[in-house]
Amino acid sequence: MSFRGILQGLVEKVEGGQGAVIMGYDGIPIDEYIKEDATLDIQLLSIEYATLLKEIRKTVEVLKTGAMDEIFVTTGLTRVIVRPVNEEFFVVFVLEKECNFGKGRYFLKRDAPKLAEALK
Amino acid sequence: MSFRGILQGLVEKVEGGQGAVIMGYDGIPIDEYIKEDATLDIQLLSIEYATLLKEIRKTVEVLKTGAMDEIFVTTGLTRVIVRPVNEEFFVVFVLEKECNFGKGRYFLKRDAPKLAEALK
Repeated sequence: MSFRGILQGLVEKVEGGQGAVIMGYDGIPIDEYIKEDATLDIQLLSIEYATLLKEIRKTVEVLKTGAMDEIFVTTGLTRVIVRPVNEEFFVVFVLEKECNFGKGRYFLKRDAPKLAEALK
Repeated sequence: MSFRGILQGLVEKVEGGQGAVIMGYDGIPIDEYIKEDATLDIQLLSIEYATLLKEIRKTVEVLKTGAMDEIFVTTGLTRVIVRPVNEEFFVVFVLEKECNFGKGRYFLKRDAPKLAEALK
């Protein structure tokens, strides 16, 4: 399945899903799927989260508490789940605040290896 | 109840809890409770997370998606839950990877207003 197909499956399956982007730590996206009626600026969000993720990775490396696994950031309007796919790429999955967060987390965990596979 | 009492309640009640620190965005802790047998360097962890949280707050402000609410970072060995208490302070709750994460999240959400109250 294509990157976009995997991302679309993720976004469409989870209540409150708005969009998902697969992106390098350099902030350059490989592919994305954004719902037509998305109310959030998913592209801007993922670029900002790429910068943030570099900081988080640096912190995690300093702390030597194992590799980065999952990051969740909840704000007044959004829930964002970030998961590394491999050493170079990660997925940003953006959901509305009122969403099925557990399901989003589960599907992203399930699909990350498929994305890693598609990157080989 | 004292800050430490609240933090101790949190850490002791949740399976896998290692320590909790209430801290300013400037990285200066107000109080902390760390389990005697904690295997992680909670103090170092919370200082590093303070730096990170400043970055996260900056990103969230740029994105205008509402105030920062909850942050979770999972690595190979730890789960860290961060929750702002008010404009100036936040709590870092550090758990082992194998923990009751949902319970940790729930109790931190419940106790954050008590900490905010104690700060007045």
